Amino acid sequence: MNAIVLSIGDELVLGQTVDTNSAWLSRQLASLGCEIAAHLTVADDQRSIEDALREAATKCDFLIVTGGLGPTQDDLTRQALAAVLEQPLELHPQWLAHLEEYFRQRGRPMPATNRVQAMIPRGARMIENTSGTAPGIDADLLAAPHTCRVFCMPGVPSEMKAMFQRDLAPKVAAATAGRVILSRILHTFGLGESVVAQQLGELMDRSRNPSVGTTVSSGVVSLRLNARFDSAGRAQDELDRTEQLCLAALGDLIYGRDQQTLPQVVGQMLLDRSATLTTAESCTAGLLAKMITDVPGSSRYFHRGWITYSDDAKTDLLGVDPELIQRHGAVSEPVVLAMAIAARRKAEATFALAISGIAGPDGGTPAKPVGTVCIALAHPGDAAARTFHLPGDREMVRQRCANMALCLLRFHLLGKSPPF
Amino acid sequence: MNAIVLSIGDELVLGQTVDTNSAWLSRQLASLGCEIAAHLTVADDQRSIEDALREAATKCDFLIVTGGLGPTQDDLTRQALAAVLEQPLELHPQWLAHLEEYFRQRGRPMPATNRVQAMIPRGARMIENTSGTAPGIDADLLAAPHTCRVFCMPGVPSEMKAMFQRDLAPKVAAATAGRVILSRILHTFGLGESVVAQQLGELMDRSRNPSVGTTVSSGVVSLRLNARFDSAGRAQDELDRTEQLCLAALGDLIYGRDQQTLPQVVGQMLLDRSATLTTAESCTAGLLAKMITDVPGSSRYFHRGWITYSDDAKTDLLGVDPELIQRHGAVSEPVVLAMAIAARRKAEATFALAISGIAGPDGGTPAKPVGTVCIALAHPGDAAARTFHLPGDREMVRQRCANMALCLLRFHLLGKSPPF
Repeated sequence: MNAIVLSIGDELVLGQTVDTNSAWLSRQLASLGCEIAAHLTVADDQRSIEDALREAATKCDFLIVTGGLGPTQDDLTRQALAAVLEQPLELHPQWLAHLEEYFRQRGRPMPATNRVQAMIPRGARMIENTSGTAPGIDADLLAAPHTCRVFCMPGVPSEMKAMFQRDLAPKVAAATAGRVILSRILHTFGLGESVVAQQLGELMDRSRNPSVGTTVSSGVVSLRLNARFDSAGRAQDELDRTEQLCLAALGDLIYGRDQQTLPQVVGQMLLDRSATLTTAESCTAGLLAKMITDVPGSSRYFHRGWITYSDDAKTDLLGVDPELIQRHGAVSEPVVLAMAIAARRKAEATFALAISGIAGPDGGTPAKPVGTVCIALAHPGDAAARTFHLPGDREMVRQRCANMALCLLRFHLLGKSPPF
Repeated sequence: MNAIVLSIGDELVLGQTVDTNSAWLSRQLASLGCEIAAHLTVADDQRSIEDALREAATKCDFLIVTGGLGPTQDDLTRQALAAVLEQPLELHPQWLAHLEEYFRQRGRPMPATNRVQAMIPRGARMIENTSGTAPGIDADLLAAPHTCRVFCMPGVPSEMKAMFQRDLAPKVAAATAGRVILSRILHTFGLGESVVAQQLGELMDRSRNPSVGTTVSSGVVSLRLNARFDSAGRAQDELDRTEQLCLAALGDLIYGRDQQTLPQVVGQMLLDRSATLTTAESCTAGLLAKMITDVPGSSRYFHRGWITYSDDAKTDLLGVDPELIQRHGAVSEPVVLAMAIAARRKAEATFALAISGIAGPDGGTPAKPVGTVCIALAHPGDAAARTFHLPGDREMVRQRCANMALCLLRFHLLGKSPPF
C-alpha cells in the first residue's frame, strides 16, 4: 500500500507558505504502514489540479489531497475532481442543512458562496468536518489497471488533522492490515556527518532493514532508523536491535532519541542530580538560557542568568577584571572562565556555563576569525574552558555554540571526556 | 519560463523534516519572473529520483533539485542524474583538490567516502559550493521536444541558498528576460488577521494585480503583494501604489517590509536616537535579548540584560521588593514595572523592557491563565506596564510576548499610542 500527498494552493507553490500538512500526513501514514511515494504541490488552477490527480492516481493506492475546498473562486479541488471522475457535482442536502446550521449558530446568514461546499461529485462519499465549513470527499478513481482511492480534505491544518484521524486513519489502517513502517531518530552532537557515517559503517547500507540515514541541523547529526515489517512487534524489536548497534558504534555521542532535545536531556540529568545551572552569555546573548527554558519545568534547575554583551557588562555584572579582558580579549578562555566562576558563585548554582565568541558577520580577526567561540563550565571544585571554531553564519554559529555548551555539560555529567 | 522544484530525501517523504527549501526557492524564482509549476518530493531511492527527473523534465524549463549530494550511501542524486542523462560519472580533478584542501584546512584527512562528491556526469557543469563539500551540478536534459535545464544543489539550506543566489539566480534571470513576478511583504504586529483583512477591504480581491494576501507567524500578520507585469519598472510602480494603499489602510501598524524584522526596525530607531536598551526577562528567559542581538551591530545599543526566572532572582539581581512579589504575584504590572525601572538604572540605559508571564503548559490559574503576560517599558522620566492575554502554546506565547515588548517600545519611539 502506498500513498501520494497532493497539496493545492497558490501560496504553497509561490513559497509564501511552508507546507507543513504533507509532513504531518506522511508521519501519520507511515505509522499506519503506508509507504509514501511522493509529495506533490500544485497551484489553485483547475487544469493543473486535474493533471495532478490523473497522474498521481496511476502511481498510488491512496491519494491524499489537501486544500482548495473553501468557498471562494480560487478553491477548485471539487470541480477538478468531478472533471477527472467525469461526474457532475451534486448538492448534498444533509451537508447543506449542516452548513446553514453552522452559520445560524454563529448568528450570521450563510453567504451564497458557501453553498458550493455542500456539493460533491456524483458517486463520491462526503467526509464530515466537525470543525469547519468544508466537508471532505472520498472517491474511487479508476486509473487502470487499478483503482486509486482519493481523499480530499481542507487545507486548514486543524480541520485536516481532525478529519484524518477520525475518518481516514481507520480506512488506511484497514487496508494496510498489519504492515507497518516504524521510525526512530537518534540524535548526536559534536562530530561531522561524514565522520558519524564512517563510524556507522555498514549500518548505513541502503538495502538494510531497518535502514539508517543521517540528516544535520544546527550541528546536530540525527540518525533516522526506518523499519518496514509485517507486524509492529517485529518492527519494534528490529528497531531496538538496530538502535543497540548504533549505540555500540557511536556510544555517548548519541544524546537522545525522537523528539528529545539536548536541553531536555541535560535538564533531566540536572534534575536526577538535584543540581542547578546558571548562564553567562556574551555572543549568544540569551539564546542558551532561552533554549534551557524552552523545556517546561526548567524552573526547577534554572533560576537566573546574565547577558554580558559588552566588556563593561562582564566587569559590572560578573566582576571580570578589566585587565584580564584587556590582556586576553573578551573572546578568550581566561575571560569565559572568570565569567563562569563568577556566575556560579553569584547564582549559588551547581553548574555555570559561560560563552564568549565572534558570531559575525563582523568582529573577526586573523587570530580569532568569525566562528571562534570560548565556552567555560564551572562545576563543584573546578572550572574548565575550551575554544572552538564553528562554521556557518551568525545564526548558525550562535546555535552551534549554545548546543556545544550544553554538550560539554552533558559529558561532564556523564563523567566522560567528549570524543571531540 | 517555468520551473519545478524537486526535493529529495527519506526524511522529507516520511515527514520527519518539513521541507522549507522549496518555499524559499519558489520565492526566489517568482521574484525572477519564473512561474512555479509544481513542487515534488521523492525518497532517497535511485529509481524514484530517476523517474521524477524524467517526468518533471518534460513539464518545465528549469528543474531545481535539492538534496542527495552528500557523501553517504543514501545520497543518490548524482547517480540518478547520470543514469537519466545516460552519461558516466567522471571525477572532476579541480573539485577533488578543492575537497582535499577543505579538509586540510580543518586539520583532518579527507574520508574516502567524500571522493564521490567530486564526481559529476560527463558533459555536465559543476557549480561551486563556497560553504560546504557538495558541489552543485548544472546539466541539460533532453526531454523532447524541449531541453530542460537541471540544477542540482545540496539540501543543506545555507549551502543551497548561497549557491542559488551566486550561480542560479543570474542564469534564471537571463532566461526570463523582462517578464516579472515581483513581490513585496509588509509586516504588521498587534491586530489579528481578520481585523487586518477587514481594514484592507477590497485590496484583497483575488482578481487584483498586484494581489494582496495575508499570512500569520508568531502574531506577525504579513501582507504579501504580488505583481505580475511585463516589465520590472511597471511592476515596481504598481507595487509602490498598492503599498501606499495598504499604508493608508493600516498606518503605523505596518512596521517593516520584506526581510525587515521587528528587532531590526527597533534597533535602527534606537541608533537614530543614540539610545540604548536593556532587558529583564522572566518567562521569555533570554529570548527577547537573543532576538535583539540577532541583529548584527546590536552591540551599539544593547550591552547587557538580566534573566530573572525565579522570584529570588528578581529580588537578588534587580532588587525587586519580595513583598511586592508576595502581594501581586511575579506576573503582575507592579513587579514588571519594578524590574524595568531597576534594569534601566543598573544598565544606565535609555530604555528597559521587562517581561513576566505564564508561558505554560503549567502555572496557569483562573485569575491568570496560561498566556497572561505583563510587559513594562521604562523610559526617561517614567515607566508603564500593560497586561496581555496571548494565545498559543509555550513557544508561541514566548515569541508573541517578546514581539509585543518590542512593539510597545516601537510605538513609544514613534510618540504614538498603539492601536491595540
